[in-house]
Amino acid sequence: MVERTEAALDRVFHALADPTRRAMLRRLAGGERSVGELAEPFDMSFAAAAKHVKVLEGAGLLSRSVEGRTHRCRIEAGPLAEADRWIAYYERFWAVRLDDLETALLRHMSRQGRDQKKRRGK
Amino acid sequence: MVERTEAALDRVFHALADPTRRAMLRRLAGGERSVGELAEPFDMSFAAAAKHVKVLEGAGLLSRSVEGRTHRCRIEAGPLAEADRWIAYYERFWAVRLDDLETALLRHMSRQGRDQKKRRGK
Repeated sequence: MVERTEAALDRVFHALADPTRRAMLRRLAGGERSVGELAEPFDMSFAAAAKHVKVLEGAGLLSRSVEGRTHRCRIEAGPLAEADRWIAYYERFWAVRLDDLETALLRHMSRQGRDQKKRRGK
Repeated sequence: MVERTEAALDRVFHALADPTRRAMLRRLAGGERSVGELAEPFDMSFAAAAKHVKVLEGAGLLSRSVEGRTHRCRIEAGPLAEADRWIAYYERFWAVRLDDLETALLRHMSRQGRDQKKRRGK
């Protein structure tokens, strides 16, 4: 079970590690597209686009239905929920970092306020 | 700017697309570790572990400080916040899916309730 999840995460993160595939998902967020339509904005052959579609499909992020000679692609966001859960575990670390920044900023501002008052007092 | 973000996302998602690297980050969540300590739980050479550490470092997910001959590694979660933001855009899709499931489940349960009442009524 754990190994299956690990392998699934491997595939999802690998699929997301490419700007073209991320852009394809973004387009699919707007509705179903054919492989040709997905290839359109990119300077790439239909074959190259089909390869990216296959990687997304292998990660479970895309499903397709065949209508005649056209393959309609649809986004499947479920596996992203798993990736989201994985990353969320680390939120405390970047949240802590932001808290530190906020504290430092507030300290800096209060110090500046004090300095200004001192200068005015002179 | 956009291209820099895209390249950074490429590196982060690529770094996460490997179970060993994900496990290393999980260990670093517990505190600083040397490269040797990070290699320990895995059946791999120090050189192989160092390679994974380098990928994490390249993605900005790990920083190291040198103490004598030991490299102390620390988690840097900042780039995960960016990856989290990217994935969060798609939450509506998996959330919608869960809403659909909930609706279907509630419908199923109310139908079952009706059927049971009918049977009791007979």
